[in-house]
Amino acid sequence: RPEAAAGEQPGGPLPTKERPLGQIQHSRQRAAKLFQWLITPVSPQQFFEQSWEKKPVLVKRHNPRYYQGLFSTVDFDAILRDSDVQFGVNVDVTSYVDGKRETHNPVGRALPAVVWDFYRNGCSLRMLNPQTFSSTVWHFLSILQEQFGSMTGANIYLTPAGTQGFAPHYDDIEAFVIQLEGKKHWRVYSPRKEIEVLPQFSSCNFAQEEIGEPILETILEAGDLLYFPRGFIHQGNCLPGAHSLHITVSSYQKNSWGDLLEKLLPAALQMAIEEDLDYRRGLPTDYLEYMGVLNSDMVDSRRDAFTEKIQSLIKKLVDYAPVDAAVDQKAKSFLHDCLPPVLTKNEKALSVHGLPARWENGDIYDVNIPIKRETQIRLLRHGIVRLCSEGDRMLLYYTTENSRVYHKEEPKYFEIDPEYTDGVEFLFSSYPKYVSVDTLPCESLDDKIAIATVLFEKGLLITKKPLA
Amino acid sequence: RPEAAAGEQPGGPLPTKERPLGQIQHSRQRAAKLFQWLITPVSPQQFFEQSWEKKPVLVKRHNPRYYQGLFSTVDFDAILRDSDVQFGVNVDVTSYVDGKRETHNPVGRALPAVVWDFYRNGCSLRMLNPQTFSSTVWHFLSILQEQFGSMTGANIYLTPAGTQGFAPHYDDIEAFVIQLEGKKHWRVYSPRKEIEVLPQFSSCNFAQEEIGEPILETILEAGDLLYFPRGFIHQGNCLPGAHSLHITVSSYQKNSWGDLLEKLLPAALQMAIEEDLDYRRGLPTDYLEYMGVLNSDMVDSRRDAFTEKIQSLIKKLVDYAPVDAAVDQKAKSFLHDCLPPVLTKNEKALSVHGLPARWENGDIYDVNIPIKRETQIRLLRHGIVRLCSEGDRMLLYYTTENSRVYHKEEPKYFEIDPEYTDGVEFLFSSYPKYVSVDTLPCESLDDKIAIATVLFEKGLLITKKPLA
Amino acid sequence: RPEAAAGEQPGGPLPTKERPLGQIQHSRQRAAKLFQWLITPVSPQQFFEQSWEKKPVLVKRHNPRYYQGLFSTVDFDAILRDSDVQFGVNVDVTSYVDGKRETHNPVGRALPAVVWDFYRNGCSLRMLNPQTFSSTVWHFLSILQEQFGSMTGANIYLTPAGTQGFAPHYDDIEAFVIQLEGKKHWRVYSPRKEIEVLPQFSSCNFAQEEIGEPILETILEAGDLLYFPRGFIHQGNCLPGAHSLHITVSSYQKNSWGDLLEKLLPAALQMAIEEDLDYRRGLPTDYLEYMGVLNSDMVDSRRDAFTEKIQSLIKKLVDYAPVDAAVDQKAKSFLHDCLPPVLTKNEKALSVHGLPARWENGDIYDVNIPIKRETQIRLLRHGIVRLCSEGDRMLLYYTTENSRVYHKEEPKYFEIDPEYTDGVEFLFSSYPKYVSVDTLPCESLDDKIAIATVLFEKGLLITKKPLA
Amino acid sequence: RPEAAAGEQPGGPLPTKERPLGQIQHSRQRAAKLFQWLITPVSPQQFFEQSWEKKPVLVKRHNPRYYQGLFSTVDFDAILRDSDVQFGVNVDVTSYVDGKRETHNPVGRALPAVVWDFYRNGCSLRMLNPQTFSSTVWHFLSILQEQFGSMTGANIYLTPAGTQGFAPHYDDIEAFVIQLEGKKHWRVYSPRKEIEVLPQFSSCNFAQEEIGEPILETILEAGDLLYFPRGFIHQGNCLPGAHSLHITVSSYQKNSWGDLLEKLLPAALQMAIEEDLDYRRGLPTDYLEYMGVLNSDMVDSRRDAFTEKIQSLIKKLVDYAPVDAAVDQKAKSFLHDCLPPVLTKNEKALSVHGLPARWENGDIYDVNIPIKRETQIRLLRHGIVRLCSEGDRMLLYYTTENSRVYHKEEPKYFEIDPEYTDGVEFLFSSYPKYVSVDTLPCESLDDKIAIATVLFEKGLLITKKPLA
Repeated sequence: RPEAAAGEQPGGPLPTKERPLGQIQHSRQRAAKLFQWLITPVSPQQFFEQSWEKKPVLVKRHNPRYYQGLFSTVDFDAILRDSDVQFGVNVDVTSYVDGKRETHNPVGRALPAVVWDFYRNGCSLRMLNPQTFSSTVWHFLSILQEQFGSMTGANIYLTPAGTQGFAPHYDDIEAFVIQLEGKKHWRVYSPRKEIEVLPQFSSCNFAQEEIGEPILETILEAGDLLYFPRGFIHQGNCLPGAHSLHITVSSYQKNSWGDLLEKLLPAALQMAIEEDLDYRRGLPTDYLEYMGVLNSDMVDSRRDAFTEKIQSLIKKLVDYAPVDAAVDQKAKSFLHDCLPPVLTKNEKALSVHGLPARWENGDIYDVNIPIKRETQIRLLRHGIVRLCSEGDRMLLYYTTENSRVYHKEEPKYFEIDPEYTDGVEFLFSSYPKYVSVDTLPCESLDDKIAIATVLFEKGLLITKKPLA
Repeated sequence: RPEAAAGEQPGGPLPTKERPLGQIQHSRQRAAKLFQWLITPVSPQQFFEQSWEKKPVLVKRHNPRYYQGLFSTVDFDAILRDSDVQFGVNVDVTSYVDGKRETHNPVGRALPAVVWDFYRNGCSLRMLNPQTFSSTVWHFLSILQEQFGSMTGANIYLTPAGTQGFAPHYDDIEAFVIQLEGKKHWRVYSPRKEIEVLPQFSSCNFAQEEIGEPILETILEAGDLLYFPRGFIHQGNCLPGAHSLHITVSSYQKNSWGDLLEKLLPAALQMAIEEDLDYRRGLPTDYLEYMGVLNSDMVDSRRDAFTEKIQSLIKKLVDYAPVDAAVDQKAKSFLHDCLPPVLTKNEKALSVHGLPARWENGDIYDVNIPIKRETQIRLLRHGIVRLCSEGDRMLLYYTTENSRVYHKEEPKYFEIDPEYTDGVEFLFSSYPKYVSVDTLPCESLDDKIAIATVLFEKGLLITKKPLA
Repeated sequence: RPEAAAGEQPGGPLPTKERPLGQIQHSRQRAAKLFQWLITPVSPQQFFEQSWEKKPVLVKRHNPRYYQGLFSTVDFDAILRDSDVQFGVNVDVTSYVDGKRETHNPVGRALPAVVWDFYRNGCSLRMLNPQTFSSTVWHFLSILQEQFGSMTGANIYLTPAGTQGFAPHYDDIEAFVIQLEGKKHWRVYSPRKEIEVLPQFSSCNFAQEEIGEPILETILEAGDLLYFPRGFIHQGNCLPGAHSLHITVSSYQKNSWGDLLEKLLPAALQMAIEEDLDYRRGLPTDYLEYMGVLNSDMVDSRRDAFTEKIQSLIKKLVDYAPVDAAVDQKAKSFLHDCLPPVLTKNEKALSVHGLPARWENGDIYDVNIPIKRETQIRLLRHGIVRLCSEGDRMLLYYTTENSRVYHKEEPKYFEIDPEYTDGVEFLFSSYPKYVSVDTLPCESLDDKIAIATVLFEKGLLITKKPLA
Repeated sequence: RPEAAAGEQPGGPLPTKERPLGQIQHSRQRAAKLFQWLITPVSPQQFFEQSWEKKPVLVKRHNPRYYQGLFSTVDFDAILRDSDVQFGVNVDVTSYVDGKRETHNPVGRALPAVVWDFYRNGCSLRMLNPQTFSSTVWHFLSILQEQFGSMTGANIYLTPAGTQGFAPHYDDIEAFVIQLEGKKHWRVYSPRKEIEVLPQFSSCNFAQEEIGEPILETILEAGDLLYFPRGFIHQGNCLPGAHSLHITVSSYQKNSWGDLLEKLLPAALQMAIEEDLDYRRGLPTDYLEYMGVLNSDMVDSRRDAFTEKIQSLIKKLVDYAPVDAAVDQKAKSFLHDCLPPVLTKNEKALSVHGLPARWENGDIYDVNIPIKRETQIRLLRHGIVRLCSEGDRMLLYYTTENSRVYHKEEPKYFEIDPEYTDGVEFLFSSYPKYVSVDTLPCESLDDKIAIATVLFEKGLLITKKPLA
């Protein structure tokens, strides 16, 4: 929940201490900076040009403290103790012995005594969506998601010395393995065939003999980073004498051109049918005679004409394809997937959460929201709102009321009167600068105050100075 | 049901007496001939080039007996008496008085006394799917459907003198109004706007002031024909002194290029994603910043690149579009929609229905199906089967076990061993010639007899001579 | 369908030729007479007192022609030929060899050549609901159902010489096995334990060693009858040299006192709660401490008080039990299960089906239903209608629009104005006498004619003389 | 969640300071004591004998601090500020002006500025299930539920001076109105008719003229209590000059003898049918002739016999009624409805939550659960577990993993090996005394330790001394 300050739960402020992330005003630039810190010394530009979706990247830092503070097994222990962690929902107990992968989840609450007993017996522990429990991970991912423009999640893996928790497999997401404690022996393998390059779906578990020779083999130590694209088979195991704790950050699930086309094509066809008579004309009365799989070897000029007609209609879809509307569909999904933003104490004071409206001494005080002509405002973050057209309505989707638990809340949005959209766009384009309410491009001052107030009430705006 | 001989129920043989339809061996040609008889003196070629899906056609014959035998109000009366006709299911009672369209259906069985009482009070009667009750209409439509390659249905309309039964509206089908008895005053109007030309869906009822001036106004008399494409608004009313009975034959519902593309595009995209890495690559990480409806006026080279990329991927779908497989999907639906064929007495004797296997004198006789090497066989009709690939199986869809009641039966099909498909194709291409079983392109004589037997058992083959 | 005359389809008039069933006016007495003919020389009184639901009855007649005309294998053959018989829906192909029971149904239409081929290979044939295809069986069962007051159905079993088609088992219905052709060796076994006496559900197939020794063993020959109650295990097999054809008439499925109580108790409790405060009072606050399975051995006076209270509330339900309404619920189900009545030619002429309303020479004639003050009317049958209260409405349920196919039609009913119920009751109580319309206990002559007309239109009344 | 200590969230320890509730060992007695404090000076015995489910009780204390600490508007304000309160889910905004009752809920998060703005405009606020947000209310209700043995909930009502928030109506629960701040004018009316005494369902909103004259009219001030049974119409309004805050504690929804019978009767009938042949026998073949609503006035000895038979079968159900099993069904539902227990710091230390198993310095420590032969154990609370038979399994239902949010969790249970049930029962009966593990009535010491360990792991047991 947005209003909970980072640090109230296990974890603490981001571990990028030497880099004053908080001084970067633009949330998009802050995301870029955080990503840079993550993969340095590789530069983001180099990474996206040469490696992203192409090949693994290994960063050996010889600095076990580099990622320190992001998450630790002590945090894991504290979470088990203090939060409602459920087996099978929040934590999985797994093993991979003699080529056999097993899950050992009991039912119900995962308390330390039971969890550590599994660990003592050689089981690996996977914490799903640690952002629910660790404010630091939540903070970390909530920034990073703006870098990827695609849902960004994480799992934590804790493996006892001398064991392996998972069978070799590939995933459907881009993976950043951040080694937090101990060390782990990793082997990464190329996709086995063209069709498994950047695959749509994760693989099953493979047997060792199915996967060939690794293209990368390394021992990851605390502070190291390993990236590999979806489709790259991987397995990691602990050496005797050292446990391993890592967090895997993931993104880009179902975020391909094909995924966008799945939203775009039906809309394009529907629009073409409505607007273009060519799509509404009847098929030839005799087409069943020469078309169909059984006729595919038939030499018949009618086949050629039919095929050309279909092809021209497919190509003409380009003219009707509502690309921007389809992108907005994707954006809506993304905003629903997003973590809510983490607010600093200062941001809270400047937002609706800092308003002085209260009950005190038997009565209410300061109930007015004192947004005025000269109030300086800006968006809290760049990526927390998006204005999408839906039919003939403009809906403003936003993330501030999302939950840290994936999709626990329905998509949050409200309708924006068309005459206010310019005002909203102005706030977008001004970000991260503050602007005074009376510069909003709305007809009247009342309108300006009204749109500012509704955005402020939803936690989307902060003011330059506290309103109180 | 196929086995019921034409003429057993109300109606009789087709009214095209002077045209020896039965002597035409090829069912497709028989369909063409029947259609020619329907619209003569317009030639089919002229009709399809100049009028089909374009404009109304009026044929005034001055020959009230031309369509005689197809259906009559006496048949209507007999059906009410002898068959289980249900209000709302098989017959509708309607009126259109002072611009108000009403339906007056009671519940339950529609018996003559009740139905004629409504008629006496000025209500119109619409019999839905008369092919269920009249063998002649069934026979007529079962031939015609092969001409259209699209589901072909009919309604019967009986209107008392001096009344109108329906408000002006347009339909989503090509309509052939065949005047059977009496006369009716018709007005036909052009589609009101581009979007209503060959529309996907039928209209609501219009008020007179919404539809403009008719482009065609006529009094249809028995023996006359009126065709108009979907989208053309129409209304018909009876003059004082003469009732009207007509049958409207309809086809080409949801049979446009767009309808085919609705089946084709998802399959094309799925195939492209599987086969072409370009569709699986991730979207740009920053695309949400410059794409979307709110950004549609933004001048940004990234927008251009993004749009070009999408357009090239749409156009490249052409390379992956499984056109023949999509046509087979349409064909499967059509075969499910088809009426079962009507068999002549002779055809019955030459088909599985003529086999002598029987119980007699306390025992069974002639149980073998004596298809042999030298048996001469052919398909019963051209349009009653279709071989479609489904995944890696070949399925033979067929119409002989369909019901005269629309979709009362599930789609009927059986799997064909891939080694038999050549034999089936050979039967298709030989039609309407008889071929001997041993000329079938199968490996062994046993195979030849096996495939012939299974097709014969389903009523799809006839033999040149009775098997008994 | 009621309007189809018996004899139009395979089968013919009832085989009880020497007994002029048709001369018995009261349908209930006709049913009793038919049942008497079925089980003679056992008298119905003796049967119901000594055997019904108690023990098997065997009638050996030494008269192979006694049941002749009811159904024959020639009828079976004709039905396969002329009707749409589907494997698995209308006919099952079974075998029982070496203790193994198998079903061999192909899919689709069951044509004679295929069916007789199975038979030739030793399979048994079971025709389900032969009343759909045989008018004689329909006629037979439609009368008999009035004797049982419970759904009455039938299956036909045809077994090749020297084979057995079914494993030993017991059913959940009272069974009357009528041997029609050939002979069959039957063994009947007592229920194995108290809980299997008059069981609610049919058994699985038993192995021979599970069923003990038969209490009855016989060879049933044409003209013989074998009755056994539900719960009696049975098996029949053909001897070498003779096939067997029998029809098993079944009734009393889910027709026990317990089945009635399942409808009655929830209604009784609901009524008690609404009317009696004792049922609405709260449970004791401490009842969970001394009640519950774990406390069942506790000695505590509060347990006794609680139990007594519950018992008194159960017993007091008697005062609120709407027995008649629950019976009406059962009656409604029964009327939905009923076969429609078979009308004689004469009955058709005297019913709505004989009305002269018609289309002739281009116009309608005799549309009026000429029911007048002096018209003599009566119900067509006693058991075809039932007036049930539903909330505060009176609904008349009736069977004349049921289908010969089980539950193909929804329950048929219409609402009766409360002021007309006396008229309907009068018709019930007068049956089978004809009464003139003006003797109906309604307020006005218009009312009398109205209620007579609506019942006549639904086929529930006949007039003494044709109305035409 | 059980592990969250009371007081971490708005609210604090129970306001019954002068009464050392925590010193009462038995949770059932603690519940009784708390209830006594609630209604004093009325004694519980007097209350349950004279007023419970019978008539209103008014306690005027002239001590505004009596209930202080339970909940305050300051708590309300803090909850709005710090928790995720949603309009329509957790808080309702209502008004009742000029006889018109309205709800004014916006969508989304209910922040103080918006909520207090409604309040300022005269709207009432209802917080649903405040136990979700206030640990004190949670603590209060979690104890009280053991007194009622039925789900115990609460709503908070805050009303501005001079307004009314709700229309007159009655509820389906026993209501205890506890005035916390300010004052409110209440009017209570008797049930209007017998059928509305202790009704099953709540009423709609009434108009003033429908409800007659109040039987009780008073001004409730802070520290006062008003009880009224379900079915008593009530309305409360604020006087000018004073707001009102009260909490209404509710219980006994669907907890009547009739509700128990709804579970009991179907089971009783099923058992009777299985065990008693009388219920499986067929109905008389002729019963439809003399039974049914239309025959209810018929004089016929068969009617009497039928009715007597039914009545005797209803009464005989007493012999088959599984009362204890039906009570266990109710108990299971109650345990699902229950709030989880609130643990003191000391109880946490003595329970599974106090176990020292942990991650420290890179490894796990103290993972064993050191329950031994001599460990002294007891149940945490009396009402947190119940052993119910389900078919032939014994299931232990428990409340410790329930959520403070109603039914957020599925019912929690695990199976108990039949040989361990005596051990569980022993723990029940020993409560609140501690017993040593080796006194458990199990076969072996291993068994004793095993059952103690599983109960301890679920949080159901505490030890006399910390295990660490």
